[in-house]
Amino acid sequence: MPERIVVIGAVAAGPKAACRARRLLPDAEIILLDQDDIISYGGCGIPYFVSGDVADEKELCSTSYHMVRNPDYFESAKGLMVMTRTRAESINRKKKVVVVTDLESGKQQEFSYDKLVIATGSRPNRLPVPGSDLQGIFTISNLHKAVAIKEKIARGQVGKAVVVGGGAIGIEMAEALTDLWGVETTLIEYMPQLLPGIVDWEIAGMVQQHLMENNVDVLTGEAAMEFVGDEKGHVRKVVTGNRELDADLVIMAVGVRPRSELARDAGLEIGPLGGIVVNRRMQTSDPDIFAAGDCVESLNLVTGKQAYAPFGSIANRQGRVAADNLAGIPSQFTGVVGSFIMKVFDRCVGATGISLDTARREGFDAVAATTVQTDRAHFMAGMALIFNHMVVDRSNRRVLGLQGFANMGDGLMARIDAAAGMIARHASVSEFSNLEMAYAPPFSTAVDVLNSVANIADNICSGRMITCSPREFVEWMDGKVEHPDWMVLDLRHPNEAVPWAKAYPDRWYALVYNEVRHKWQEIPRDRTLILICNAGTRAYEMQLFLKSKGIDRTLVLAGGLNLIRRLGVDWWIDA
Amino acid sequence: MPERIVVIGAVAAGPKAACRARRLLPDAEIILLDQDDIISYGGCGIPYFVSGDVADEKELCSTSYHMVRNPDYFESAKGLMVMTRTRAESINRKKKVVVVTDLESGKQQEFSYDKLVIATGSRPNRLPVPGSDLQGIFTISNLHKAVAIKEKIARGQVGKAVVVGGGAIGIEMAEALTDLWGVETTLIEYMPQLLPGIVDWEIAGMVQQHLMENNVDVLTGEAAMEFVGDEKGHVRKVVTGNRELDADLVIMAVGVRPRSELARDAGLEIGPLGGIVVNRRMQTSDPDIFAAGDCVESLNLVTGKQAYAPFGSIANRQGRVAADNLAGIPSQFTGVVGSFIMKVFDRCVGATGISLDTARREGFDAVAATTVQTDRAHFMAGMALIFNHMVVDRSNRRVLGLQGFANMGDGLMARIDAAAGMIARHASVSEFSNLEMAYAPPFSTAVDVLNSVANIADNICSGRMITCSPREFVEWMDGKVEHPDWMVLDLRHPNEAVPWAKAYPDRWYALVYNEVRHKWQEIPRDRTLILICNAGTRAYEMQLFLKSKGIDRTLVLAGGLNLIRRLGVDWWIDA
Repeated sequence: MPERIVVIGAVAAGPKAACRARRLLPDAEIILLDQDDIISYGGCGIPYFVSGDVADEKELCSTSYHMVRNPDYFESAKGLMVMTRTRAESINRKKKVVVVTDLESGKQQEFSYDKLVIATGSRPNRLPVPGSDLQGIFTISNLHKAVAIKEKIARGQVGKAVVVGGGAIGIEMAEALTDLWGVETTLIEYMPQLLPGIVDWEIAGMVQQHLMENNVDVLTGEAAMEFVGDEKGHVRKVVTGNRELDADLVIMAVGVRPRSELARDAGLEIGPLGGIVVNRRMQTSDPDIFAAGDCVESLNLVTGKQAYAPFGSIANRQGRVAADNLAGIPSQFTGVVGSFIMKVFDRCVGATGISLDTARREGFDAVAATTVQTDRAHFMAGMALIFNHMVVDRSNRRVLGLQGFANMGDGLMARIDAAAGMIARHASVSEFSNLEMAYAPPFSTAVDVLNSVANIADNICSGRMITCSPREFVEWMDGKVEHPDWMVLDLRHPNEAVPWAKAYPDRWYALVYNEVRHKWQEIPRDRTLILICNAGTRAYEMQLFLKSKGIDRTLVLAGGLNLIRRLGVDWWIDA
Repeated sequence: MPERIVVIGAVAAGPKAACRARRLLPDAEIILLDQDDIISYGGCGIPYFVSGDVADEKELCSTSYHMVRNPDYFESAKGLMVMTRTRAESINRKKKVVVVTDLESGKQQEFSYDKLVIATGSRPNRLPVPGSDLQGIFTISNLHKAVAIKEKIARGQVGKAVVVGGGAIGIEMAEALTDLWGVETTLIEYMPQLLPGIVDWEIAGMVQQHLMENNVDVLTGEAAMEFVGDEKGHVRKVVTGNRELDADLVIMAVGVRPRSELARDAGLEIGPLGGIVVNRRMQTSDPDIFAAGDCVESLNLVTGKQAYAPFGSIANRQGRVAADNLAGIPSQFTGVVGSFIMKVFDRCVGATGISLDTARREGFDAVAATTVQTDRAHFMAGMALIFNHMVVDRSNRRVLGLQGFANMGDGLMARIDAAAGMIARHASVSEFSNLEMAYAPPFSTAVDVLNSVANIADNICSGRMITCSPREFVEWMDGKVEHPDWMVLDLRHPNEAVPWAKAYPDRWYALVYNEVRHKWQEIPRDRTLILICNAGTRAYEMQLFLKSKGIDRTLVLAGGLNLIRRLGVDWWIDA
């Protein structure tokens, strides 16, 4: 058993590994060091601290039983030796020592180790464009930055802000600035959609529309090319390809990268994404050195490729596995699926596994099923629509991913969490169809939305259901794509459908669902029918019926008009 | 392909099978029959209709797009032939005909079939005690009964009610009567706890206490022995072994049994639990006859034994599989794990898999891990405690079940749903430790409660953590069990712990958690120490520390005092 364990980095993975090691190895000497003076904080809580939902930064550093997790706490309660403001400079693997600098005194010192844990985390990217080092441009890299941002706003110095980067942190920060502080905020994402690589276009579109409804200006497909400052060196403008935006504050949230230099310089293996390479026991290429958290790469269990998953939750799990193994317990961390959830004002968005775009790029024969359904029994107060989008490998019916959009609450998380373990185990569509979701009317529906979306995926994989994606439909209605042979067959109640048929007489035909079996012969047959209802269910049923009558040029609008409405299209007609 | 399909029973499994069959077999003739005139209703919504949450019974019979699911709807929209008030009397398997009676005219008729689906559902049990057929005693068997109950209350005829049966329906009905109508309600359960066989004592105890806080009188371990009526034959009293209870209304919710006589009389195989035996394709012992829903038995995927799972959600899944197979698609319904969730006033309770009691009765070497944790980041507004209880087979670390209790919302469901699919696939504790639950501070914690409870189960299975169950602790404090060698070591903050040490000087010793490493030598060593904190986490840490110092007669109070508080014990001290 190791006599001395040194842990470098004391935010998430590091303290977890150190505390677990302490419990497993009561007699070992355990040293936890960090270059910062604030340690063991909930970094994912930073946007909620900036927004004011969390009043004091100390709350992010406290236990649930109200002890501040400072060095004193770790020493007295946890029995660790903690050194803050202490930077690890190098690792001498032959001598098994870490060379550190005391940042207060500047003095250098060596710590010998039997086992070493590297938990050096990540650092935020900065755009390589002019002015990106101006004052007033912040990354969300630690609690000091968060305090500085909040103080700047509280002093009334921020009227307008620009958030660069439409990933999770960028969106959370845009909400934080707008919601509590009323800062005029613009969110810029250089990809054509928000949350690129995480969710597909339809889900991202609903997020974008909801942000705009809540006074966040969102610009997608637009890059920050330059930051312009005033004479004092403070940022005043953000220049994109299309415009100039005034800004008293810029949040740069363009991703993070592994802080792996210490490991690299020590000759440890570094992966293609810049993270430290570890095996399932969180062991680096040196068996006495473990690594965990944002500084390592992981295996993506869906693609089978290396992935970078800098999440606090994963850091904690990896820290535990590292501690187990340095204490001789053969635990494993097998990989990641990318489970994700976030609040966006009154809505939430989540995902696990991979998106349709990613799946196709990775060479899967992938299709998507999109559904909208009530999140609980439609007769219960408080019910709301929940949107789900399942990505499936058509060749073997394996589920590759699930995404969703819903009202703020834990209902979407329930479906994401239920899917995560199944996707990690390569479960098939039929296993999702029969997944035994807990049911009672205040919580869900007899056929849960997760079962439904799998049923739809089954119908698609079997060739029974042929869909038109919301994106294709919107592009057609927007006039971006011509489909002269398309016509809508609107199956909704005449009160809903007829105003649309009047507004778009050249492309819209209304015939209510429960009359199709009697009146199908009246339907024009010269064009491909885009079958439309609110959710897609009635449209699918009529697709099968019409096919049995020889009308087989039909496409079901996936997700129905309920989804389209949430995209904020300008040709929407309220009926 | 079958030319004529007859489906007997039109509540859940029947309509699902008929509608799916219609989509798969556009040319088949499909006849759906039921002896009732109300069909295709959400039976699970009945308590919410009685409570008034659902104003009109029609809402329980409507689609989410506001069409009433009556025979007209099924005929025009779905293309089925529907016959209500039509009772199936017998099946002649040789002739392949069903003999039916028109309950209006009394006329008998025969329907030939190529394939038959039996979806005859369940019937409620009645206690075999005197007076159980008095007026005013209702089972919750169909919507007519529900309407009658609601009308009776609305007419002001119910001041006091007794609900017999502390399962899910009994609890839901007790809440419905008390909450909206203010009826003085007593809930009787003859087993020593509520929800017997579904959750363990600790979880049931929190449910019971919450019911009592909301003015439902709960009597457990007490059986209804007789119902006494007035001269008009209306129930007035319920006699138990211990007392007489006045009652203007009695709800008898003592379980349901499969309605399988039609199948039995036709010579189809019936299982040990009285349900129709089906294979994974929902085929009975006659390959042309399928069965689905509350009338069949299922395989329990945890125990490997036959189970009876009369849930609307399962009925829907089975109906779909039956339809697939009669259309030649080889779908399978592999079995059940018993996922369950219910609202109880401002709380909810849920479970999946089997309880500790059941596991031990079934011969598993089972242990339980119990934990309490904040359901989302402790620094977020709206966070609340969530209690989880995981049942594990110690011999192979397979997870057998998960239960929980939480504030009303979808957070508990997220953990139950995440566990259900894993338990069905016989996942191990370590797979639960690493299950990638979606994390953001407004939704969950970096180490999700489901990961935590698995980590605790791992520590228990490894012999690192040795616990005392809340039940053992309560029985000791209640004086029901003597443990002269037990003493509490209370690790909480002195503000919390010292009042208890003063109140119970013979059995309570206070030493705050973060001083144990310095002051452990002061702790009395003559007795077994029951290590106590609010959640169990600090107690576990100190168990390991004390063991390293040679103090190994310690037990961690599982779930800590946070759980004990929710049981409403009369020796609780508010500090």
